[in-house]
Amino acid sequence: MLNTELARLPTPALILDESRMLRNVHRLRDRLGPLGVSIRPHLKTVKSVDAARRILEGGTGPATVSTLKEAEVFAAAGVNDILYAVGIAPDKLGRVCAIRAGGCDLSVTLDTAEQAEAVVQAAKAAGMAIPTLIEIDCDNHRAGLNPRSPALARIGRILADASCLAGVMTHAGESYKVVGAEAQAACAEVERAAVVVAAETLAAAGLACPVRSVGATPTAHFARDLTGVTEVRAGVYVLFDLVMAGTGTCAIDDIALSVVTTVIGHQPEQGWIMIDAGWMAMSRDRGTAAQAVDQGYGLVCDVEGTVLDDLFVLSANQEHGIVASRGRVAPQLPIGTRLRILPNHACATGSQHDGYHVIPDGEPGALAYWPRFRGW
Amino acid sequence: MLNTELARLPTPALILDESRMLRNVHRLRDRLGPLGVSIRPHLKTVKSVDAARRILEGGTGPATVSTLKEAEVFAAAGVNDILYAVGIAPDKLGRVCAIRAGGCDLSVTLDTAEQAEAVVQAAKAAGMAIPTLIEIDCDNHRAGLNPRSPALARIGRILADASCLAGVMTHAGESYKVVGAEAQAACAEVERAAVVVAAETLAAAGLACPVRSVGATPTAHFARDLTGVTEVRAGVYVLFDLVMAGTGTCAIDDIALSVVTTVIGHQPEQGWIMIDAGWMAMSRDRGTAAQAVDQGYGLVCDVEGTVLDDLFVLSANQEHGIVASRGRVAPQLPIGTRLRILPNHACATGSQHDGYHVIPDGEPGALAYWPRFRGW
Repeated sequence: MLNTELARLPTPALILDESRMLRNVHRLRDRLGPLGVSIRPHLKTVKSVDAARRILEGGTGPATVSTLKEAEVFAAAGVNDILYAVGIAPDKLGRVCAIRAGGCDLSVTLDTAEQAEAVVQAAKAAGMAIPTLIEIDCDNHRAGLNPRSPALARIGRILADASCLAGVMTHAGESYKVVGAEAQAACAEVERAAVVVAAETLAAAGLACPVRSVGATPTAHFARDLTGVTEVRAGVYVLFDLVMAGTGTCAIDDIALSVVTTVIGHQPEQGWIMIDAGWMAMSRDRGTAAQAVDQGYGLVCDVEGTVLDDLFVLSANQEHGIVASRGRVAPQLPIGTRLRILPNHACATGSQHDGYHVIPDGEPGALAYWPRFRGW
Repeated sequence: MLNTELARLPTPALILDESRMLRNVHRLRDRLGPLGVSIRPHLKTVKSVDAARRILEGGTGPATVSTLKEAEVFAAAGVNDILYAVGIAPDKLGRVCAIRAGGCDLSVTLDTAEQAEAVVQAAKAAGMAIPTLIEIDCDNHRAGLNPRSPALARIGRILADASCLAGVMTHAGESYKVVGAEAQAACAEVERAAVVVAAETLAAAGLACPVRSVGATPTAHFARDLTGVTEVRAGVYVLFDLVMAGTGTCAIDDIALSVVTTVIGHQPEQGWIMIDAGWMAMSRDRGTAAQAVDQGYGLVCDVEGTVLDDLFVLSANQEHGIVASRGRVAPQLPIGTRLRILPNHACATGSQHDGYHVIPDGEPGALAYWPRFRGW
């Protein structure tokens, strides 16, 4: 049945397994409940209104986004509580105010006094507050202030004086580079400590910090204590991918995203199978290259989704993938054979496609189609 | 003027410099004319009807494409001679026949007898010939037959018996990995020899081989003798990029594509500048990683396009780029500063965007907008 449906699609095409996605969503929700925190899913991974409705509690939020385009699309679809988790550029504040004026509680992120002044100015001009999180750097990964930085109270004061200080947020980007429960739990504790200390720094300056937001998919799955944290952000956990499997955060069988492809040739002397999924279909992401098992441009499954253990996409050109075996000469699968490729990075592979062909949850039936969007 | 235009765009946004593009187009055309061959530009790089009209002679072809979607869009726009240069999957032949029936002379590529049988069957069913090139492997890079393979005559016979044999084609993919005129000229000679020998193999079996197609951007620029070759394919030469500069095929100043971005933060202790162009805007391509100068995720220019010599995009998350200096601590450019980033790989960076904001050739004026398309 599934075989027939997938054989009908023009290839390459993006496949989403709804049952696996829902299992992943419930797994993290069930895990965080007892730790006393809510989840604010990061919708940059799916960029789909249909997917967001199934991921968000009640379909309306809270949610995290990485672009104002995402905020605009999801707000129009009824999501009413959104954090834009990338440092705000002053000239984007007009769009922020417009989204807020439309009834969505959109908050922003920053780590400089210049940005705080711009937020306050825009808020005053629009006659509204703009809830703002100050970004904290917990692991020298990317943006944010040291949680003990004197700049924290200075920026907090600028925001608080205009009723725009909502709290602090951090992201343990380094958790993507470590493997296993102990190392991930340590990263989670680094995140927790960063927002707790930052809240203390603000409190010492007489500033309230109601929101203390942390998150990354690995830390969300291995945190043991979230005392002092009010919410957890995570994105790729809904689909998972080979990079996440490589960190020990999921099993290969949890990966809900794949690309269906067709065999278009062989190189018998090299032991290669040529497929019509190149980097345009898989993305250029090589996130497993630095992990214990380098999965090339993806791991090969049959069309039903069963992993063909030793086959992976060795290399990729724009529209050619080269499948090779780790241990033997790859079998000369007949021209026209359909395969499915599990991606290194779900966010990157998804972004190469205009929509998901969805294997629906429950009874097997016709594939659904969920459009994706992109842009800024 | 340009500064004002680029300051108005929401960032990140894709910028195409039309003057540089036209200079690149004419440079290769002028070079190949005296060598006695025509050029068949590969439109997979630009994926834009507006760009194709300026790249193709008379705006109508010949052209090369990497997907049937490209063939359909360009045929609808009046391109009447197209080679689909990826091995044909049998279930795509219906679309091939439909494009041909619409008046576009679309040819296909293959390297197995199974594919040849499928082409002949589809051609007979549609009551037309489908001109077909047999792919030759010149450098163990990807697909194709050895030019002396006995399979060549066998496949050629299957095609010729149905009037579908047009000739042979090859692509020196390895030329992307070598540097400088001598090495590239050697790769070009490998391409030339492959199609000449393949044509001899076919001739020995009594089969004509009118088309002998070669090409890659580096070999097209350094070939010294193209005797026996009938056409050259190249794609990225119209825009160029840092990978091509790293092979010595172009200068940095020839790169016609860039991404305009905004400074959104700093990490003074790390010496970093944060920008709103991450891998979603630049692509995950890290093609310069294996070259003498690793350009990270791109080389940084001011908004006018002047390279800021020591600044490059050290790393990228989905919507964050981290700019660092090679030799010093990066200057703390003010929040809101506009920069432009030159990409590693024009085909990959372009595919992340829905269209080009075009700095028009000639008198400076308002930016034009050329939509791009994608998909299969």
